[in-house]
Amino acid sequence: MQHTLLVDCVDKKGLVYAITKQLLDFDVNIEQNDEFVDNENGHFFMRTVISGLDKPFDLQAEIQRQLPDANIRLFKNEAKKIVLMCTKEPHCLGDLLVRNEFKQMNAEIVAVISNHNKLRALVEKFEIPFHHVPHTNIERAQHETQIHEILAEYNPEYIVLAKYMRILTPSFVARYKHRLINIHHSFLPAFIGANPYKQAYDRGVKIIGATAHYVTDNLDEGPIIFQDVKTVGHRFTAKDMSKAGKDVEKIVLANALKLVFNERVFIYGNKTIIF
Amino acid sequence: MQHTLLVDCVDKKGLVYAITKQLLDFDVNIEQNDEFVDNENGHFFMRTVISGLDKPFDLQAEIQRQLPDANIRLFKNEAKKIVLMCTKEPHCLGDLLVRNEFKQMNAEIVAVISNHNKLRALVEKFEIPFHHVPHTNIERAQHETQIHEILAEYNPEYIVLAKYMRILTPSFVARYKHRLINIHHSFLPAFIGANPYKQAYDRGVKIIGATAHYVTDNLDEGPIIFQDVKTVGHRFTAKDMSKAGKDVEKIVLANALKLVFNERVFIYGNKTIIF
Amino acid sequence: MQHTLLVDCVDKKGLVYAITKQLLDFDVNIEQNDEFVDNENGHFFMRTVISGLDKPFDLQAEIQRQLPDANIRLFKNEAKKIVLMCTKEPHCLGDLLVRNEFKQMNAEIVAVISNHNKLRALVEKFEIPFHHVPHTNIERAQHETQIHEILAEYNPEYIVLAKYMRILTPSFVARYKHRLINIHHSFLPAFIGANPYKQAYDRGVKIIGATAHYVTDNLDEGPIIFQDVKTVGHRFTAKDMSKAGKDVEKIVLANALKLVFNERVFIYGNKTIIF
Amino acid sequence: MQHTLLVDCVDKKGLVYAITKQLLDFDVNIEQNDEFVDNENGHFFMRTVISGLDKPFDLQAEIQRQLPDANIRLFKNEAKKIVLMCTKEPHCLGDLLVRNEFKQMNAEIVAVISNHNKLRALVEKFEIPFHHVPHTNIERAQHETQIHEILAEYNPEYIVLAKYMRILTPSFVARYKHRLINIHHSFLPAFIGANPYKQAYDRGVKIIGATAHYVTDNLDEGPIIFQDVKTVGHRFTAKDMSKAGKDVEKIVLANALKLVFNERVFIYGNKTIIF
Repeated sequence: MQHTLLVDCVDKKGLVYAITKQLLDFDVNIEQNDEFVDNENGHFFMRTVISGLDKPFDLQAEIQRQLPDANIRLFKNEAKKIVLMCTKEPHCLGDLLVRNEFKQMNAEIVAVISNHNKLRALVEKFEIPFHHVPHTNIERAQHETQIHEILAEYNPEYIVLAKYMRILTPSFVARYKHRLINIHHSFLPAFIGANPYKQAYDRGVKIIGATAHYVTDNLDEGPIIFQDVKTVGHRFTAKDMSKAGKDVEKIVLANALKLVFNERVFIYGNKTIIF
Repeated sequence: MQHTLLVDCVDKKGLVYAITKQLLDFDVNIEQNDEFVDNENGHFFMRTVISGLDKPFDLQAEIQRQLPDANIRLFKNEAKKIVLMCTKEPHCLGDLLVRNEFKQMNAEIVAVISNHNKLRALVEKFEIPFHHVPHTNIERAQHETQIHEILAEYNPEYIVLAKYMRILTPSFVARYKHRLINIHHSFLPAFIGANPYKQAYDRGVKIIGATAHYVTDNLDEGPIIFQDVKTVGHRFTAKDMSKAGKDVEKIVLANALKLVFNERVFIYGNKTIIF
Repeated sequence: MQHTLLVDCVDKKGLVYAITKQLLDFDVNIEQNDEFVDNENGHFFMRTVISGLDKPFDLQAEIQRQLPDANIRLFKNEAKKIVLMCTKEPHCLGDLLVRNEFKQMNAEIVAVISNHNKLRALVEKFEIPFHHVPHTNIERAQHETQIHEILAEYNPEYIVLAKYMRILTPSFVARYKHRLINIHHSFLPAFIGANPYKQAYDRGVKIIGATAHYVTDNLDEGPIIFQDVKTVGHRFTAKDMSKAGKDVEKIVLANALKLVFNERVFIYGNKTIIF
Repeated sequence: MQHTLLVDCVDKKGLVYAITKQLLDFDVNIEQNDEFVDNENGHFFMRTVISGLDKPFDLQAEIQRQLPDANIRLFKNEAKKIVLMCTKEPHCLGDLLVRNEFKQMNAEIVAVISNHNKLRALVEKFEIPFHHVPHTNIERAQHETQIHEILAEYNPEYIVLAKYMRILTPSFVARYKHRLINIHHSFLPAFIGANPYKQAYDRGVKIIGATAHYVTDNLDEGPIIFQDVKTVGHRFTAKDMSKAGKDVEKIVLANALKLVFNERVFIYGNKTIIF
């Protein structure tokens, strides 16, 4: 059994020493250790993977006692429980379902919620509950309330927007702060908003991309977790770019989720520190 | 001796046939041939590298006679005469000077113009005229007039903005339409304007890039020729990104110039077709 | 309805003219056209996508009459019938099954053959026949005979080795010449043979890759269709490299198949020309 | 003034604690800190950038006293003194000369040695001593003796083979163990030996690359520091690949040198750990 310890606080001398001293006192093995100091803001980040820890609560309490102002999180390294949300496109969803089926992503998909019914058959092949919550003929608040109710039933640690093509309200976002992850089909901050491939085509770019990020109130502005790109050219129509982009989108999302689910990500302001 | 033939016109049946028939009649060899049809706009593009052409003017005239509405250009494949413009950063300039010295870019740098004097020593090492045209204590129009005069003296086919950090007026740009090439230090259209690395740092992107483009009236909005990117992370300060970006900038600019100087680029609207 | 015309022959003057003349005579539209001349070997390649063709056999016959020594192929642009072969790893198989389910690959998977039974459940979710042909307690020739019989039943145009981890005999390969496509889990020709990720780890490379290629008698030596790479580092164990490589493998295979199924690939000697 | 502390030793509990305790006792600031444990071999690596260190020898001695079996190196962060060796190709040499001129590589080129005279003019533009040591009409041992004598005069910390196209003897290599860095024009271990671009062309690869590595007795087999790649295709002749590869070579070499000169590299067996 391994645990991951995440500590961040205002930087000062002796932090690594103070934390590793506790780890030594608790007689654990350090499997991995990474630190980073954001010198501009004077903030310290440390991630440690440890084995042989018998009393996690005691360790966390002791470090907190030493560093009362630090944010300290200690996770058992086990699969996260997640819910996916999607609309009509199967590429990200299908990719995650296959990974989930073969336990390749340190998470368990416990349900899928969609505002359309198109992807039900795909999801049910994998014997995962599919919840269709149509957004038509209903107010936005009411629609989100229905989603909240389903989420409450599953109580997931993370909600992954796997091409969920509907904007969520600030109150929805606030409720799942730092637990909502989205894949945007452009190399942000290029082509914010709708139809990024059409925008990319119109601008005549030679490279397209995709961006996985935490969702915040400001659409497409949340902390970026992972990005990747792909070369295109004048022979690509907007539709060709969209097709070519799907491969980037699904791999970018999967990579971002791997980082998040392995507790490799600190969110700090509107940025991420990733070990 | 090779020539490059560039033809573009409204698309219709039989264009490749009509053009290659002329090439056959003139008994030349086709070394390379590429076509592209922009189906959205119904426009045809063809680039042909030919050898064994004795009468280029006759060939061009004959094709023009067959296709009176087409844009037809025929180039002898020889080094272009170019002028570089720069400010204070040596990486793009130095890279091009070394390539020029060893005749590795199908162009000859005949002069360098700068609004600062900092790079004079570097340029003069390579025995290329360096013209310092300071922009201080002078009106913008007058500053550009001085540059025009120097350019008139050299009459270059292309003017390369190798990190020239001053905005050119629309009248300057208009005068050298399709002959001005710039390297922008971001993955356009992300981070238009000043300090793109600072913008990239503030946004927390995981990839930075550079873009070579033709200069038009709208700053950073001209037709894109080439782009490339580089992975960064939270350990990069804005200054680190700027340093890391220099390698991308110089290679992107050199690649774009190679395409332009080998007559591989059509400009169509605000985009490029590149063979 | 579109057709794709593929012509290759010894290079000589007037080939583009001769072919496009026929296309004009048959009154078709050229949607895309690409040529390439391998000057080292004096060989000409041309691929043309045409629409409005009523009499494909007549066109092919007429071009053949004009160019008696040319290889001429004319395809209707429709989905290819394919069979997948796999062993135990689900990543390539799963990726192709999802693409197939949503008709995103210009092909139809008509059956899957495996020497293990592990992936049966995954395949059957998608209602595709799964044939388990165990290789244990049986001679190699007999094993392949059983596979031949299944293939004969489906008569696929292509057989895709989607992580089929068993070497095929020369006689098997010969029988499906140019119709067998494999994904190799290294950046060939680096790390030919078994356990390429272990080899990569032992060598301490900083980049790993994957290669899709036609299968020939010489293991891992067939014509390369597509390659891609991914950055790794000292923190990657051989197992980590293997995991990270799976994403590259599946995307490389899917890209290669898209090229093949869209008739964009010429095989020439041990190389490919790809338009 | 900053220092970089590099420690590696057999892994055991409490190492980070023991080292950071000393750093605290010496009242220094930790600017950066990275650790890595090679779990397969049970070996620990730690790199720390510190500021405010007054007594470097005392710190090193004290840590050594605590960890008697560790390899401990402590460097003042200042420019390394280096000698370049080259043959006829200017791209890597020119790139490094420009970086050197503008102090962009944390090193100072104190001399260039070449077995040809072709690049003398380029080097002397930058007022750096150029030593021509022809290898013709002379025995290999004697040739290397002449090079040793020049190197002895300059006593560089590193010798960079910037396209030095002659094999060095084991005794030469042994003399400058871990101080010789080479750029190889292929994505090693693909295409070991002569003419890698010709080999790449013959194999029909779709990606070419370059590799910077420490030189060891076994040609092209030393620890890899950095690699990068570039996409090619059937339109590239072997010569085109060679041209396209030059950009990759020079950037790969420059990146590797930046890592080495900033003391970011541990050599362990035939691999590198890079922070």
